[in-house]
Parts: sequence; C-alpha cells; structure tokens
Amino acid sequence: MAGIDTVLARLDANRDAALQRLFDFLRIPSISADPTYTADCRRAAEWCANELKGLGFDASVRDTIGHPMVLGHARAKRRDVPHVLFYGHYDVQPVDPLELWTTKPFEPTLANGPNGQQIVARGACDDKGQLMTFVEAVRAFRETGDLPCDISILFEGEEESGSRSLPGFMADNAKELKADLMLVCDTGMWDAQTPAITTMLRGILLEEIRIKAADRDLHSGMYGGAAINPIRVLARILADLHDADGRVQVKDFYAGVEELPDEVAEQWRNLKFDSGAFLGDVGLSQPAGEKGRSVLEQVWSRPTCDVNGIVGGYTLAGSKTVLPAEASAKISFRLVGRQDPDAIRRNLRDFVEARLPADCEVEYIPHGGSPALQLPFASEALSRARRALAQEWDREPVMAGCGGSIPIVGDFKAKLGMDALLVGFGLDDDKVHSPNEKYELASFQKGARSWARILAALSN
Amino acid sequence: MAGIDTVLARLDANRDAALQRLFDFLRIPSISADPTYTADCRRAAEWCANELKGLGFDASVRDTIGHPMVLGHARAKRRDVPHVLFYGHYDVQPVDPLELWTTKPFEPTLANGPNGQQIVARGACDDKGQLMTFVEAVRAFRETGDLPCDISILFEGEEESGSRSLPGFMADNAKELKADLMLVCDTGMWDAQTPAITTMLRGILLEEIRIKAADRDLHSGMYGGAAINPIRVLARILADLHDADGRVQVKDFYAGVEELPDEVAEQWRNLKFDSGAFLGDVGLSQPAGEKGRSVLEQVWSRPTCDVNGIVGGYTLAGSKTVLPAEASAKISFRLVGRQDPDAIRRNLRDFVEARLPADCEVEYIPHGGSPALQLPFASEALSRARRALAQEWDREPVMAGCGGSIPIVGDFKAKLGMDALLVGFGLDDDKVHSPNEKYELASFQKGARSWARILAALSN
Repeated sequence: MAGIDTVLARLDANRDAALQRLFDFLRIPSISADPTYTADCRRAAEWCANELKGLGFDASVRDTIGHPMVLGHARAKRRDVPHVLFYGHYDVQPVDPLELWTTKPFEPTLANGPNGQQIVARGACDDKGQLMTFVEAVRAFRETGDLPCDISILFEGEEESGSRSLPGFMADNAKELKADLMLVCDTGMWDAQTPAITTMLRGILLEEIRIKAADRDLHSGMYGGAAINPIRVLARILADLHDADGRVQVKDFYAGVEELPDEVAEQWRNLKFDSGAFLGDVGLSQPAGEKGRSVLEQVWSRPTCDVNGIVGGYTLAGSKTVLPAEASAKISFRLVGRQDPDAIRRNLRDFVEARLPADCEVEYIPHGGSPALQLPFASEALSRARRALAQEWDREPVMAGCGGSIPIVGDFKAKLGMDALLVGFGLDDDKVHSPNEKYELASFQKGARSWARILAALSN
Repeated sequence: MAGIDTVLARLDANRDAALQRLFDFLRIPSISADPTYTADCRRAAEWCANELKGLGFDASVRDTIGHPMVLGHARAKRRDVPHVLFYGHYDVQPVDPLELWTTKPFEPTLANGPNGQQIVARGACDDKGQLMTFVEAVRAFRETGDLPCDISILFEGEEESGSRSLPGFMADNAKELKADLMLVCDTGMWDAQTPAITTMLRGILLEEIRIKAADRDLHSGMYGGAAINPIRVLARILADLHDADGRVQVKDFYAGVEELPDEVAEQWRNLKFDSGAFLGDVGLSQPAGEKGRSVLEQVWSRPTCDVNGIVGGYTLAGSKTVLPAEASAKISFRLVGRQDPDAIRRNLRDFVEARLPADCEVEYIPHGGSPALQLPFASEALSRARRALAQEWDREPVMAGCGGSIPIVGDFKAKLGMDALLVGFGLDDDKVHSPNEKYELASFQKGARSWARILAALSN
C-alpha cells in the first residue's frame, strides 16, 4: 500500500476526471419512486457496477422485487486488514416542482457559491455525489497500490422510495454482506469548514391508540352531558404524557438514557449552535422541549414523545353536533441510549389504561419501533476516523447526533451485528429533496480525500 | 263556540275519515332532500293548502328559493280570543335503506303493536301524523261552531333538509306570521300513557379553534424535542376544559344557570327514568357528565361542553413522523337558562389564550350560537295546556327538557318575540328518520283531542 500522501496526490490529479464521472452518473434520471424511470434506475445500477468492475471489484447488478441492488467485493493483498462494507444509494428523489429549478435537474452544471463552486443537479449531494467520494478514494488506492482494507460496496436503488427490497436482500445475502464495519456517506458536515461523524441515531417507537366509547356516533343534543366523549378521553391522555417541564410521564421512560460524556457535552457547548436560526427557519423562536436542555440535546441526544396525528368526529367544514364513537392518535417516541422500545410500548399501554374511564375501550395499533444506535465513543474505529478527519479539515470533527433514524443502519446492526461509521459532506443548504439540489465541489474533493484518510487509518 | 265535549265527540265521529285523509297525505313522497321529489313536495304543499281552504282558511302555497311554504289564517267570530300560530312540516326524510322496510314507505298501512294499532309509513309521525292532529282538531271546531282562537298555520317543506328558505320567509312575512303564541307538534310523549310539554330547549354555541405553530409541517426526527407540537397544545387545552367533577372551567360558564323549580325537580325524580336503558341502548353504562346530577338533568337542564371533532397531522393508515403545523378542534356547548352565548365565546377564547405557549397562534372559526329557550314555568298558557293534557290523558304531563335545539323555535323567539308551546305525541320507538317509521293510532286520535282541549283552554 502506498503512503497516504501518494494516494491524496492521485486524488488531486484525478479531480477533473472524477467530476466528469460524477456528471455522467448525474445525467441518469434514476428516480425510484416514479415507474416512468424504472429503466433509468437499472441503467444507473449498471453504471455503478461497471465503475466497480473497472476498479477490480467482483461486482454485479442483483435483481430484486423492485429496483436492483449493486454489490461488489475487492480484497486487499494484505491479509491482516479489516473488512468494511460501504453503503450508498444510486436512486434520487423526484424533481417536482420542475419550474423552480434554474437549470435542468439531470444536466449537471457548476455554479458559484459563497463556499466556492457547487455541483448543481438532482442527486448531486443525495446520494450520488456522496457515494462517489468513496468510489474515488478507492480508485486512488487502486491506481497507486494495494487497497487498505477488504472492501465490499452495496448500492441500493430504493432508498428514496421505502427500501422495500432491502430486508429480503439482506436476509438472502447475509453472509456476503457481513463485514467488520459499515461505512455510510449520506449525512452532513457541521458547517462548510467542520466535518462531522454521526455517532448517535435516535430510535423510534410508533403506536396508534384508538379510544372507543358508545357503539355509534351520538347526537350531542340527545346525549351530550351524559355520554362519555372519546375525544375528551384522548385529549386528557395526551395532555398527561408530559409534565410541566416537558418530561415524559410514561413509567420508566428514562431507563437507559445516559448523560453525554463530558468531552462531547463540552464540544457541543462550544459549537455555539444557533438555536435561534434553527427554530427561526420554520417560524418558531422558543425551544419547546425538556426544560434545562439545549436545543442540540433536545434533537440529538434526548428522547421525545410526540403526537403525529389525531382524528375523531366531524372534521370537514362547518359544524356537526356529534359525539363520536371513537377517536385516535398516532404517538411516536424518539429513543436514545439503551431505551427499550418494547418496554416503553408496554408502559405506554399501562399509562393509557390507567386513564381509561368506564365504558371506554382502547385498541392499539403498533407501527413498529427500533432502538437507538450509538457508535460507542470509545470505539477504536471512531477514534481513527476522528483523527483522519481532523488531519484533512484541520478541525476536530463534531460528534453529531441525528434526531431521526436511518433504517439501513438499524437493519445492519440488528441483523448482522455491524456498527456503522457515518461520515458525510453535505451542508444544511444543499437543498436535498428540493429544487436546485447542490453539492459543494469542496465537499466532493475533500470528501474523497477524507475517505482515503479514513480507510488508511482503519487499516492496521 | 260549542262546548268541548261536542268538539271531542265530533273528533271521535270523524276518526275513520281523518285516518283516510292522513293516508292520502302520507302517500305523497315529499322527500325534501332529494331533488327527484321536488314536484312531490309541491304536491304535498298544495294538498295542505287545499285542506286548510276546506276549513275556511285564507290559505296559499308560497314560493321560496326552495320548497314552498303553506300559510293560512282563520279568525274566530269572537274578537277577544288569542292568536296562535301553529307550525308543522310537510316534508319527510329519505327512506334509505329501502330493503329494511317491511312495507312500502309511501303506502301507509295499519299494523298491530303493544299499544294498539300503529300507522306505518314514512312521515307517519314526523311530521305528517303530528301536524294532522292539529288540523283535525281545527276541523272539529269548524264543524261544530266557532274557532276558539284566531289561528294561523305555517307548514314548511324543508325542515328535514336545513330550512334554508325559512329565515328569508320570516323576514319577508314577519307581520303576517306574528301571533301571541306559537304551537308546535313535532316532539314526543314521556311514554305511551304520559303526555309531555317540552318547556326547555338547550341552546348551543359552536366554536372551532385552530392552533398554529411552525410555518410548515416538520420532520419529527429533525425537530422533535425542540419544536412545539400544536396537537399537544390542543390536547392540553381540551383536557383543561373540565375539572374532575365534569364541571366546565371556562370563566363564568355557569352564570345564568338556575336550579329546577322544586315542583319540576320532584316530578323528574318521580319519573323513574331508566338511565341504564338510555345509556345501554348505545353501548354505555355510566353517566359521564357532571357529578351529582341525574342523567335527565345532564341531558335536559344542565349545560355541557363537548368536542365534536378534532384533526391534526397525519391521519391515514400507518405512520408518518410529522410534527404538524396546525391542529384544530370543533367545540360545542349546550346552553341552558340565561347563559349568554356571546359571553361564553369570549371567555372560551380567553381560556384558550391563557394556555397558548410561545410561538403558537390561534384562529377562531365561529359556527353560530343561540341561547336556550325556556317557556316560563309560571306562564299562563303553560298552565292551561297542562290542565288540558291532564284531562285528556288522566296524567299530569311531564315538563320535559330537550337536549338539542329546535331552530324554528329559536328563530320565532328571537325575531318575532313569540314563546312556543311544544306538545307532541311521538314515542321513543317511532323510528323517526329510520325504516318502518310509525305513529300510534292512539297518538293520532288522542293527539287531536289534546289539541282540541288545549285550544279551548287557551281561549278566554
């Protein structure tokens, strides 16, 4: 294996060709949600497989019940290296509303921005630009010597439309997919100068509760005052879920929730996160969550309980004097640390039943759940990746949380026992999923250099 | 004017002919909600007008923006009598589901029931059978001598479909409609042996509240924990509306609510109302309203606050991890006594605003309101009608409440200052609005005798 400086020099020398390769890839309208583009999705898969074959991978397009997967493997000549599995997705979001694009979404261009040049196209960031940072890093190793690790690469074609083929594909190919560590490039930087590693992904628990009372809708004139109203019952249950300090009142809810390590807590305080801008962007001004927690903690490292939907009775225009027979709410919890979704679901049901008046029944409709994911702060892979990123960017990478879940990461952890290192180079203003999606040219170029450094650092 | 016994004897002698007249009327399918039956509605109006003309009324069919009105006037020869306006409606409900009828809905028949023979047809009770009790009483006076009162009669053809022509018709014909007292036959008896006068009609106040927070729907992964959730805000407001004893917490809500007169309270206690059966009929077992109040009080004489509809966020199948930008609820209050809808609306809004967290706005959509109606217990007309009914049925009539409002009564009170005497002969099992609607033959015959006695009693 060549020294890292040789690899980085090769990446710099390849810059123009790398950009042309990405542009070729971006020209394929691989919109997975729209059946009109089914053939384009296959074309994108074949393009990816050919790229990997060109890098000496044993790569193929694998048919699924939906859009195909691309899976390839390449081994280092050295035999004492770790085996990593890189995951990315070749499919992109639809482009509507097309009239808001200033250039055509599948004709990539370079534009000037405050941080230098930007690649503008659907998929420029999510995820074609990001996944190509990894491919280009691999290429530079190939062109200068041995690979630093055994490398498997999985590209999915349904990430933007529900990943319906993935569970079956994972089950059918578990042995082939299993590696020591998963690498993912589908997340963002802290800001244009500061890299980030996403080490905490909140889990989720989804439960719908339906309160039923009378066996039919009642006239509020005839029964109002005597008959129990399930909307009122539901409102009281939902109101009781939090105390005045915003803490969730379900029994043992905070079991398994730990405070941040001092080092990370201090890093977050020093980030000087602009919570005013974060909330102001969506028309808010006050953090509304747990009292005594910063906004970053509220969205990255603290668990939540929210109501995502509620419905009961008459909801169209005007009024109808009905006492409805039932009312329902969709409740979700974001989980952190070692919170147990199954235990919380049981305790939520106990919480509801303790507040159920006479004549009411409750039906539960579970909508799934998965625990939080945490790459241990003491993990050796994390330490090496942190040092590698610090060298490239001359800044300590932020140990970021992610408020939402990333299902693929949970699936690989649950089914194959693999931890994931999430490093990405997107910025908040990349307009992912929106018109005029872009990716900083610096993200593309320094992203590839970052992966080269990380792969070298992971190698023994 | 002949003595009442003469009039009653004439009613008894006319029984068969009266039933044939009602059958003729019932054969007209005057379904006001269905445009297929527009011509039939007019035919029913003309049938009514001809009946009134036959009784010497100056009667006519009056065109409206919808189905026509029938309005007629007849004066007593005596000049010191009161002027009453009788209101009824000639339109009927649709007949679906037709397959549940055991006879054809517009081919009236007599059937045997536990209380004697029953008239079975759509409209047998509501309201053709009921209004004809009054017409037959008037006929008996005509055929035996003078009328006991000046009598105006208004038949509407849109009662079952929203009465949209009525406000304009009342405004255009206020002088012609104004009388000393309104008589209505569209309510029920306490049971098959016990007549009732409905003296209390609860009023209503309808208000929709819409809580708005962020300027768009948010992803609960990204913002959950930091962003205010309008469903949770709404749930807390709704939960706060009642205390643990079921009392409404809006300021001054109970201003103008009075306890029942002792006489009425005792009458209600002695009715031995079967609250178990009332609730059991709809799958309930426990009265859920104000603690310390009987079910009859809860639905007849106590005010309520209920939520008739609620909606916010994602309400279709499955789950969506959204923090919605808004959530709304339709709230209604049933009002009694001298409760002021305008004051309660203002105080409700204050109640909501006192519970509105930072970053939330509220929009109010008023859906109308009207005060309760109360025929004063000390009213002379009420006393006379009570005595008249007691003579006919050999039982004291129940001073009933009505949990719902009857818009026409409120309109005549508000616009023409007229109190209404509500006496009807329907039974709870008459299947009004449902298949196999019926009216007891005894209700029809003793109902006509009751109106004869009431008219005689109202006459000086």
